Amino acid sequence: MTTAKIGIVTVSDRASAGVYDDVSGKAIIETLNEYLTSPWEPVYEVIPDEQAVIESTLIKMTDEQQCSLVVTTGGTGPAKRDVTPEATEAVCDRMMPGFGELMRAESLKFVATAILSRQTAGLRGDSLIINLPGKPKSIRECLDAVFPAVPYCIDLMEGPYLECNEEVIKPFRPKK
Amino acid sequence: MTTAKIGIVTVSDRASAGVYDDVSGKAIIETLNEYLTSPWEPVYEVIPDEQAVIESTLIKMTDEQQCSLVVTTGGTGPAKRDVTPEATEAVCDRMMPGFGELMRAESLKFVATAILSRQTAGLRGDSLIINLPGKPKSIRECLDAVFPAVPYCIDLMEGPYLECNEEVIKPFRPKK
Amino acid sequence: MTTAKIGIVTVSDRASAGVYDDVSGKAIIETLNEYLTSPWEPVYEVIPDEQAVIESTLIKMTDEQQCSLVVTTGGTGPAKRDVTPEATEAVCDRMMPGFGELMRAESLKFVATAILSRQTAGLRGDSLIINLPGKPKSIRECLDAVFPAVPYCIDLMEGPYLECNEEVIKPFRPKK
Repeated sequence: MTTAKIGIVTVSDRASAGVYDDVSGKAIIETLNEYLTSPWEPVYEVIPDEQAVIESTLIKMTDEQQCSLVVTTGGTGPAKRDVTPEATEAVCDRMMPGFGELMRAESLKFVATAILSRQTAGLRGDSLIINLPGKPKSIRECLDAVFPAVPYCIDLMEGPYLECNEEVIKPFRPKK
Repeated sequence: MTTAKIGIVTVSDRASAGVYDDVSGKAIIETLNEYLTSPWEPVYEVIPDEQAVIESTLIKMTDEQQCSLVVTTGGTGPAKRDVTPEATEAVCDRMMPGFGELMRAESLKFVATAILSRQTAGLRGDSLIINLPGKPKSIRECLDAVFPAVPYCIDLMEGPYLECNEEVIKPFRPKK
Repeated sequence: MTTAKIGIVTVSDRASAGVYDDVSGKAIIETLNEYLTSPWEPVYEVIPDEQAVIESTLIKMTDEQQCSLVVTTGGTGPAKRDVTPEATEAVCDRMMPGFGELMRAESLKFVATAILSRQTAGLRGDSLIINLPGKPKSIRECLDAVFPAVPYCIDLMEGPYLECNEEVIKPFRPKK
């Protein structure tokens, strides 16, 4: 069974400067460990809110390190330094608007400010890139909402077959 | 009463190569026959998943053949050859994000993988172009969701007045 | 307490030519007066559906007149002269897709033609620009839906602190 490589990119000026610990990236790794029963390997980086750095990190993780999936956390709000969606769109060949729509709809059940989240997702070559919010609680809500569609998406791009702990998350694969 | 011209474009490498029959395009024609009581004429093509071919077909159907509405089926997923939304955006002057949003929200009631659908819609000159999914069951679900808004959209673009069988589909036209 | 400047732009060929009175822009000002208890000052213009004029008005209100928030009304449908979303996107650095999504979802509760609304929102420098629909009834529905997120958005852009009459509208600010 092929080991899936999954990129986790924390985008945060303060975490990358060591001002505080990266709780968000670690929360994503923990969640993926709970979800996945098939072998996977994280490729993890903490970088500042610089569009050029985000773009080059996403390119390296997809093209060189062959991550089938890359998830980012942080940099999706309206503050001046928030440019993760712009970097994502710049490196993707094709966009996946349904991920952002569903994550915002999901977060709206909890907070009215969910509409300030500019999260998107897209495809670069054989890789799926998904922006997640910055806060651990919202990360989990959003991942729980969109992850059921991720294994089949990666199948369609001929990537590794992801298997999940169905007591935690139920991936959906249509019957042929 | 003016006869409306409606383009139906099946985008599929295999159907266009004759590997299998085009069930999807025919399902759309059948559905429109059920919906519409005013006169209409289909302009129907089956083409491969080539962005340039999709674009030239959409341009021909809108500019030359004067279709007020063009619906596509197929090519909206994340697989490498799926480029129908990109071709649609390339030929449209103005986009209509509400169609894709509603179709995905509607399909999400049935399958978690609805968010993988990259469907969009847009306007080219006096024509409305709508991407539908590839599977006949999803096509009907999506058309039932968005079609009530189509006749008024075409009114606003000064196209032919579409009348529907209101036992099948209820078009909405705001009172002046 | 800093006085917030809020731009209100009515985009309408007929209202700007004096063919009829601008009910929509006035309805927005009235609604904001009901919402806000902190000091604010409207910057109000009625202009035709010309993309270049809309763009220059938005640039003037944000860059020169320092409006923290600019709301437009009109020009978001599929009719040929409707180009407000295109003008908005052209002047914004970063887009806010959640506003359009929520406004359409909200309007869909009332009318099937809500999906014809091409409304968007985005950021230009320190300013938030939001497209609203043209009809007073829809304006209020849409503002009631999205405004709870606006004060926090402006906080994040380091603009003036907006206070609301919480019996009319409840702004949401996450606890730190």
